[in-house]
Amino acid sequence: MAKEITSRAENFSLWYNNLVLKAGLAENSAVRGCMVIKPYGYTLWENMQAALDKMFKDTGHSNAYFPLFIPKSFLAKEAEHVDGFAKECAVVTHYRLRNTADGRDVEVDPDARLEEELIVRPTSETIIWNTYKNWIQSYRDLPVLCNQWANVVRWEMRTRLFLRTAEFLWQEGHTAHATREEAVEEAVRMLGVYEEFARNWLAIPVITGVKTISERFAGAVDTYCIEALMQDGKALQAGTSHFLGQNFAKAFDVKFANKEGVSEHVWATSWGVSTRLIGALIMAHSDDSGLVLPPKVAPLQVAVIPIFKGEEELNRARIACIDIKNRLQKAGITVKIDDRDNLRSGFKFAEYELLGVPVRLALGTRDLENGTVEVARRDTLTKETLPREGIETYVKTLLDDIQNNIYAKALKFRDANTFLVDSYDEFKSRIESGGFIMAHWDGTPETEALIKAETKATIRCIPIEGDMTPGKCMVSGKPSAQRVVFARNY
Amino acid sequence: MAKEITSRAENFSLWYNNLVLKAGLAENSAVRGCMVIKPYGYTLWENMQAALDKMFKDTGHSNAYFPLFIPKSFLAKEAEHVDGFAKECAVVTHYRLRNTADGRDVEVDPDARLEEELIVRPTSETIIWNTYKNWIQSYRDLPVLCNQWANVVRWEMRTRLFLRTAEFLWQEGHTAHATREEAVEEAVRMLGVYEEFARNWLAIPVITGVKTISERFAGAVDTYCIEALMQDGKALQAGTSHFLGQNFAKAFDVKFANKEGVSEHVWATSWGVSTRLIGALIMAHSDDSGLVLPPKVAPLQVAVIPIFKGEEELNRARIACIDIKNRLQKAGITVKIDDRDNLRSGFKFAEYELLGVPVRLALGTRDLENGTVEVARRDTLTKETLPREGIETYVKTLLDDIQNNIYAKALKFRDANTFLVDSYDEFKSRIESGGFIMAHWDGTPETEALIKAETKATIRCIPIEGDMTPGKCMVSGKPSAQRVVFARNY
Repeated sequence: MAKEITSRAENFSLWYNNLVLKAGLAENSAVRGCMVIKPYGYTLWENMQAALDKMFKDTGHSNAYFPLFIPKSFLAKEAEHVDGFAKECAVVTHYRLRNTADGRDVEVDPDARLEEELIVRPTSETIIWNTYKNWIQSYRDLPVLCNQWANVVRWEMRTRLFLRTAEFLWQEGHTAHATREEAVEEAVRMLGVYEEFARNWLAIPVITGVKTISERFAGAVDTYCIEALMQDGKALQAGTSHFLGQNFAKAFDVKFANKEGVSEHVWATSWGVSTRLIGALIMAHSDDSGLVLPPKVAPLQVAVIPIFKGEEELNRARIACIDIKNRLQKAGITVKIDDRDNLRSGFKFAEYELLGVPVRLALGTRDLENGTVEVARRDTLTKETLPREGIETYVKTLLDDIQNNIYAKALKFRDANTFLVDSYDEFKSRIESGGFIMAHWDGTPETEALIKAETKATIRCIPIEGDMTPGKCMVSGKPSAQRVVFARNY
Repeated sequence: MAKEITSRAENFSLWYNNLVLKAGLAENSAVRGCMVIKPYGYTLWENMQAALDKMFKDTGHSNAYFPLFIPKSFLAKEAEHVDGFAKECAVVTHYRLRNTADGRDVEVDPDARLEEELIVRPTSETIIWNTYKNWIQSYRDLPVLCNQWANVVRWEMRTRLFLRTAEFLWQEGHTAHATREEAVEEAVRMLGVYEEFARNWLAIPVITGVKTISERFAGAVDTYCIEALMQDGKALQAGTSHFLGQNFAKAFDVKFANKEGVSEHVWATSWGVSTRLIGALIMAHSDDSGLVLPPKVAPLQVAVIPIFKGEEELNRARIACIDIKNRLQKAGITVKIDDRDNLRSGFKFAEYELLGVPVRLALGTRDLENGTVEVARRDTLTKETLPREGIETYVKTLLDDIQNNIYAKALKFRDANTFLVDSYDEFKSRIESGGFIMAHWDGTPETEALIKAETKATIRCIPIEGDMTPGKCMVSGKPSAQRVVFARNY
């Protein structure tokens, strides 16, 4: 099975698609650009959701739900939002079907045309701020700290499973505050939540920073982001947190009476991560044998495989496997016994490697006699034979080790592929082999656009931590406040 | 606050709307028929989701996600589905907006017309069975047991918050089986899950049964349902589970090779409950003071209110409240201290009654001195003063008592409003005051339609448990296999 996967070196993009399809994470549907997230992929998403949702609630947020549809006129209310935001949206124009004359098909009923077209939400700032207008009168109503788990639609022309699809799942936080300081603090706090989630759960080290004007979200004053490096040397924006200033409050006339009774516009943030993170997870860690999943988000942490000949041996092995399973489950580990009798164990081993199950336990005749079990870890593809006694303690520690090791490996990779570059010539050659390039830039959109046009590299972010030494722009020689992060990106 | 609620006796429908709005569960949005589910209402939904999701997983199901859009042609593939299913759907015809000539607004780009219109899913049988076609080849691929948590859209003309909205949230299970028996068993199993959920979590007693042909889901062979009785004597269909036979498998050509290698069409079920359950919950239990929520799904189980004069007293009370809070939280109870200093405690009491918080603890000066606390329960609106020592044990038991009492009350109400009726005259007068009427019916759609036209009562279901004694139809006098359940309904 694993043999059919194209190697990363041969064709990274094809390797990625092979993994998504063969591991059963997702597939394309009959609807252009819309994917089906299969049970294994969806469980991964559920695990990610559960961790994020807890972090959102621990920082004081509640979930709510806002309409799927947005009146067309709303999109035009915030000037920059309408200018800058992609207009590739699904537009609902009618609300009824009818039978065709021959009764054998359905067609759109021309009499059921909507007075105003509805847009399937590409993001919900407009409909939410129109709602917040009724929720907020006084400073006592603030802050409003809502998050929504939802589907959104952006009519992408070139789609790739998880990375860029017409419909995708995400969460979007939308908060309202009495002061600029509080809103900025919130935007930065949620950036921190994303960084921590990427690091502690997805085992992905990310750079936190702020976007340049040209990469900013349409309608934001500042867009904060986390940027991850994939194994092919391309960057992937893994989450954004926007300080929206008073832009949406002004567009939708949302004001509050402050403690002194003076009416002011409300300050806003919005922040989101999506099923794109699954793409990031795959491209950050997986290898030519299949997925490599961090144990903390893996749909299945341990697979137990009895190796046997004949019914009697299988029955004995099964008893031992059930004992192992019970002990692991009690330790809070997700575990499955695979005793399918129509597949050879070699096939099963390859399958669990493909699926990225962090630990595989195999139990053969000799193990039964010796009270041992074979323990294989997915991240290093190494095996050892250990006593079954106390195996739950060992596996628990091993899962932590694997989680840490996957992170350490990704961090090492990123460090080895992050370069300080001072000349534009070096930049142009260096960018060809990928990685993050830390270089000085004069802060102008013109230089940024020139670099992008000539090298396909964009400024991923202006880091908000790390080296803040000023210097000179590698292109114009003009002063630069600090190095910024360049990369080619997804 | 509670004073502004219309009483149930005065106007049940207005009472319901008052509660939904004033308790902050949901509100209408700027988009016709689409609601905003506010944090308090959404938390209620999350608690319901968590319980159901666990029950689905415990019965072997996995979650997955299928596209929001359905190609128009898919809807016509299953003949009964297209004929019988409501055609009031949101239709996407275009995929792009553009700026208007003056640059100040957006309009639909006429060049971006879809070749085939897309329907926003009103339910997902068609797109899912089109997907299952690729998942199922052999009996070894069966059963497929998927569930999806999703939003769906049905363009309802007359909408009511939670009960009937254009967009609503639900779960839809879609399973595929090798045999008719297995599929029927699954449909009945999930009906059982719904019945148990309604009883154990929502504290709503329901009748389980099967729909008549005229009330059946379009495309189903049998529709099983749970039917609940609201306080105004009207019935509410709270969940359905469909045995779909091979209808969708035939429409989408989904076949599998059985153990003998013979190709057969797959057998199907689908089953769902929606945010409508929140409406059922409200109308089953709540009273003229506000919501009455079963503790097991209440967003907040206990509110702790310090009653104090001045800063010094407040500080002492706060310490005791925090102690109570910590002890309750350790016992797994959700609890909040309300020490807002701009509201009188009488106002707060009314607010928690409106919100349906099952238990309210109040701590005054005398309680501080005596080591006591005032315990008020929402379901009976009774109070008692108890020692603070061991209060967590008391409250834990009290929450169970409240849960049981709410169920017992609803069951008593239903029993008192369920009538055995044998003559059509009695039926016609009895139906005016509501309730479930158990009567004999000759099994024909004609008699069913006549009764509906003359009395607005429908057959809610043919019960699958209870009295199975045959008799004579109250209208035609023809033989009847068993009594069926009539009611006016939501």
